[in-house]
Amino acid sequence: MSDSTRSAIADRIAADIGFRFSDEIRVGGHYAPAVRDGRTVYISGQVPRIGTEVAVTGRVGETVSLDDARRAAQICTLRTLAILRGMLASLDAVERVLRVCVFIQCTGDFTQQSEVADAASDLLHEVFGDAGVHARTSVGVFALPKNAAVELDLVVAVRDGA
Amino acid sequence: MSDSTRSAIADRIAADIGFRFSDEIRVGGHYAPAVRDGRTVYISGQVPRIGTEVAVTGRVGETVSLDDARRAAQICTLRTLAILRGMLASLDAVERVLRVCVFIQCTGDFTQQSEVADAASDLLHEVFGDAGVHARTSVGVFALPKNAAVELDLVVAVRDGA
Amino acid sequence: MSDSTRSAIADRIAADIGFRFSDEIRVGGHYAPAVRDGRTVYISGQVPRIGTEVAVTGRVGETVSLDDARRAAQICTLRTLAILRGMLASLDAVERVLRVCVFIQCTGDFTQQSEVADAASDLLHEVFGDAGVHARTSVGVFALPKNAAVELDLVVAVRDGA
Repeated sequence: MSDSTRSAIADRIAADIGFRFSDEIRVGGHYAPAVRDGRTVYISGQVPRIGTEVAVTGRVGETVSLDDARRAAQICTLRTLAILRGMLASLDAVERVLRVCVFIQCTGDFTQQSEVADAASDLLHEVFGDAGVHARTSVGVFALPKNAAVELDLVVAVRDGA
Repeated sequence: MSDSTRSAIADRIAADIGFRFSDEIRVGGHYAPAVRDGRTVYISGQVPRIGTEVAVTGRVGETVSLDDARRAAQICTLRTLAILRGMLASLDAVERVLRVCVFIQCTGDFTQQSEVADAASDLLHEVFGDAGVHARTSVGVFALPKNAAVELDLVVAVRDGA
Repeated sequence: MSDSTRSAIADRIAADIGFRFSDEIRVGGHYAPAVRDGRTVYISGQVPRIGTEVAVTGRVGETVSLDDARRAAQICTLRTLAILRGMLASLDAVERVLRVCVFIQCTGDFTQQSEVADAASDLLHEVFGDAGVHARTSVGVFALPKNAAVELDLVVAVRDGA
């Protein structure tokens, strides 16, 4: 792990939230946590898993509060950072977060998808500064894998030469 | 604002629909209306907002008609054009619309997502001609931010040197 | 059609599933089955259509079984291969499958979205080998065009010079 400022901030946030960067991020099928094409990295949709357990399950607006949904979005985001660290050795290799899609398992009348997604956006900004400011789409969906409350994916640009 | 043919067409459509290009497109959090990486621009998901008000809210197939959903898709699309104008100075800088995702807040038995999305595709074709022909994905979702009837995002390629 | 190994594998899978590569893939509006920008190809969301008929309709977890949903994901994937063959002449021109989004029309308590998406990932791996290993996002949505059980889209990188 790099001990850059970015990594140090990510480590501090992870400790606050109870996420462990030491856990391995694995996928079960014939796909990958992330794929790189030139300077572009596509990261697979992440649910708020800590270790082997999905930490926030259920429907936002029903059994899951806005605060818990925001924590779920933070855990998903930390997982994408863990994947980027594993692939690029250091978060310093990230030139810019380009795009974030946030899917929220919510009730039919829940309208605060943006407030949930803000927790991911704020975390990316805290770690990457201006390089963490991205385009974003947030939608409320009917069901997510493993009954996760939130799922999100990222597209990221990598520095030249990194 | 450029007075190119593309902009003139967009202005005319906006006037027909009641959309104002003069309104500022703002976002509330640590993300951006659009992010550019080299020749590629990622535009954030747009709801059918005119000024500060979401013009078409509710569930398509229930309280929102197909016609109103199509108007919502048009307003979302006009917002992406407003963002592109703001970022690139002129719509002439767009080389190609690459990809459009259309999310429709609808009933569980609504099946005309493509007919809603066609309103966005037709508008892009009217403004950009062949350069507006894109890849597209349309899905029906359970809930959208601010109870919007439609949300859509774009990926666009910019001309070399623009 | 190329008679490369990849195409031969795709043909064999198609025959098993009852998909016909000879059917034309058409779209009805002002969009395209796929758009290429440099080395990147964006493929439009595909529903499990064979010829003019959607082969697997309904809601997964209710009227559609997990096995049928997996077959739907396979048909969608074969359609993306048919589109790539049509655009690039041969599947050998594909350098890497970068990203797959899988949307599943399911019940609110369905949690096996990943198991449905695995059918698409496995097929891509079978045809492309390591070049078929992609980033993936799978979500459960409320409604899909034509009452399709599954819809999926792809982003693909093309070999230099292809």
